[in-house]
Amino acid sequence: MATEGQVITCKAAVAWEPNKPLSVEDVQVAPPQAGEVRIKILFTALCHTDAYTWSGKDPEGLFPCILGHEAAGIVESVGEGVTDVQPGDHVIPCYQAECRECKFCKSGKTNLCGKVRAATGVGVMMNDRKSRFSVNGKPIYHFMGTSTFTQYTVVHDVSVAKIDPAAPLEKVCLLGCGVPTGLGAVWNTAKVEPGSTVAVFGLGTVGLAVAEGAKTAGASRVIGIDIDSKKFDVAKNFGVTEFVNPKDHDKPIQQVLVDLTDGGVDYSFECIGNVSVMRAALECCHKGWGTSVIVGVAASGQEISTRPFQLVTGRVWKGTAFGGFKSRSQVPWLVEKYLKKEIKVDEYITHNLTLSEINDAFHLMHDGGCLRCVLAVHP
Amino acid sequence: MATEGQVITCKAAVAWEPNKPLSVEDVQVAPPQAGEVRIKILFTALCHTDAYTWSGKDPEGLFPCILGHEAAGIVESVGEGVTDVQPGDHVIPCYQAECRECKFCKSGKTNLCGKVRAATGVGVMMNDRKSRFSVNGKPIYHFMGTSTFTQYTVVHDVSVAKIDPAAPLEKVCLLGCGVPTGLGAVWNTAKVEPGSTVAVFGLGTVGLAVAEGAKTAGASRVIGIDIDSKKFDVAKNFGVTEFVNPKDHDKPIQQVLVDLTDGGVDYSFECIGNVSVMRAALECCHKGWGTSVIVGVAASGQEISTRPFQLVTGRVWKGTAFGGFKSRSQVPWLVEKYLKKEIKVDEYITHNLTLSEINDAFHLMHDGGCLRCVLAVHP
Repeated sequence: MATEGQVITCKAAVAWEPNKPLSVEDVQVAPPQAGEVRIKILFTALCHTDAYTWSGKDPEGLFPCILGHEAAGIVESVGEGVTDVQPGDHVIPCYQAECRECKFCKSGKTNLCGKVRAATGVGVMMNDRKSRFSVNGKPIYHFMGTSTFTQYTVVHDVSVAKIDPAAPLEKVCLLGCGVPTGLGAVWNTAKVEPGSTVAVFGLGTVGLAVAEGAKTAGASRVIGIDIDSKKFDVAKNFGVTEFVNPKDHDKPIQQVLVDLTDGGVDYSFECIGNVSVMRAALECCHKGWGTSVIVGVAASGQEISTRPFQLVTGRVWKGTAFGGFKSRSQVPWLVEKYLKKEIKVDEYITHNLTLSEINDAFHLMHDGGCLRCVLAVHP
Repeated sequence: MATEGQVITCKAAVAWEPNKPLSVEDVQVAPPQAGEVRIKILFTALCHTDAYTWSGKDPEGLFPCILGHEAAGIVESVGEGVTDVQPGDHVIPCYQAECRECKFCKSGKTNLCGKVRAATGVGVMMNDRKSRFSVNGKPIYHFMGTSTFTQYTVVHDVSVAKIDPAAPLEKVCLLGCGVPTGLGAVWNTAKVEPGSTVAVFGLGTVGLAVAEGAKTAGASRVIGIDIDSKKFDVAKNFGVTEFVNPKDHDKPIQQVLVDLTDGGVDYSFECIGNVSVMRAALECCHKGWGTSVIVGVAASGQEISTRPFQLVTGRVWKGTAFGGFKSRSQVPWLVEKYLKKEIKVDEYITHNLTLSEINDAFHLMHDGGCLRCVLAVHP
């Protein structure tokens, strides 16, 4: 492309300070260095982790930065040594890398690749420990190794999933975070079996993806728990078979569920990020075998607690990140499943806006009716 | 036998009140009712759970009672409908029953049989919700469905493991609790693989059995952690390859272990019952796959805590009761393994006393050099 090797000036939404509206302005994006890929982002969605860092509550949040981690685009150019993708490839940037070389990747036990974490954790690129983003010479930090609220971004090659070009990027951008997280929590982390009883706490995008995953895994009951009863109608379409609103009960919600299921559920999933709910999710599990998976991300410094007796009597407490999916290997597989209509994606998109309307999009997230808002980045 | 159908008067150690010396005195033991077995206890060991209830700190402890749950004996008589054992059979009473009929037994996922729990939890027998023990007409509660600090006891038939009569009862009595708990935590609950790095917190009988289990499972490193460095010499014989005393370090013990193992251990086991140590045991596990098993029993009301990030990044928190062994099915198998010299038992016995010396035996438990004290009940 004509832009290869050049600094690209394009529009990006810059978070200059915590909790201040994002500023959509001209940003300079440097060319990719060795092992890096520059991507033209076409569509990006917003996720609660973006909002959390933006709020300033994330002690590891760095400003100014370009947020965003759930997106799809087309490779513009690649740096030295990059062989797995080339310009023109359709891709999904992945905040969870997969290098296939580190001890995590080689373990066969986890998707938590460690290769570029030391750089992505502090908002820079591995090669020179610097950012590729700047505004008039002032560096702007990367975020989660992705930074997708921009028309062009630079990511590590181990963080790029090459996907079928037949897939509509305005839809499959969602396969960069929330939907895989929910599906994988069920399929990879909990390994729900047919006939299981499942409880899902929180019926946002991730919770609904858990419900969908549980349904496809053959769960016989999928109990959705949310303090907003209006969510039940939508949730039914994703596989939720019963709805419980904790506000309708005087008893602790774990006791309500234990009573409702003759001793507790086989699997539970916390999809909110609330440590009290995490406890309830564990304690509503059946003695002897119930497994609870923490999917939501709690605010920094908060802790989970329970009586050890809960574990000694057979409950298991786990967690998941990106649903345990190996990003470069399995995101393309999820895209294929979508194209074969084996998993939902379109149904999670409740709003469509453009990059320039990103502040409105953040406001929409607090609306109970909003699941995912997709922004057209080059409208 | 001549005593069949009769009340037997024999010696038993009665705990009349919390924290008061046990009283070895004449007790009346009623004949077994339907589904019950009366056992002549020949040898019993003491375990910390006996001491915990005796101390009065267990809110579910009932007095007066006959403690004890790690023993071996010979069936004296059986009640109506009992077919699996008959008078003369060598047996180990099991505090964890196995009925093979309840939903727990049928699940294939747990050893926590629920059949007689409603009775054993409140110190009585299922059949008439009464005790078989009395002193001059005053009922004495059962304990853990076993009550082995007595020359004769009555237990439910689902709580009796029939064992090879070739096994020395003065040794295999230990297979009623501590040794299987440690071995099973490794083999059944954690499923430690060859080459794993293992941390064992607390080097009492259960911790040493964990070490032995880890060694036989092929663990490459078994790190023993205890605040009494004198225990290391003995621990080496059970498979501990390295020793860490938290008192020798300024850093939190979890950090010491993470540093010592390039990121954390694959498996950890808490064998003390201390909720702070339970947290350390989880947090010393390797990101991505480390699994921590709670084996120790914490005091009532105490809680475990951690940051949910520990689980979201791949650690798993579990617990175990009786090492996950199905008691009636697997205790006989453990006895066979002992007879084939595949597991240690003799090596855990550091003291031998008689039932009349039981108060001395309780004092011995606080001595770092004591693992198990076996009492001859009919000396």
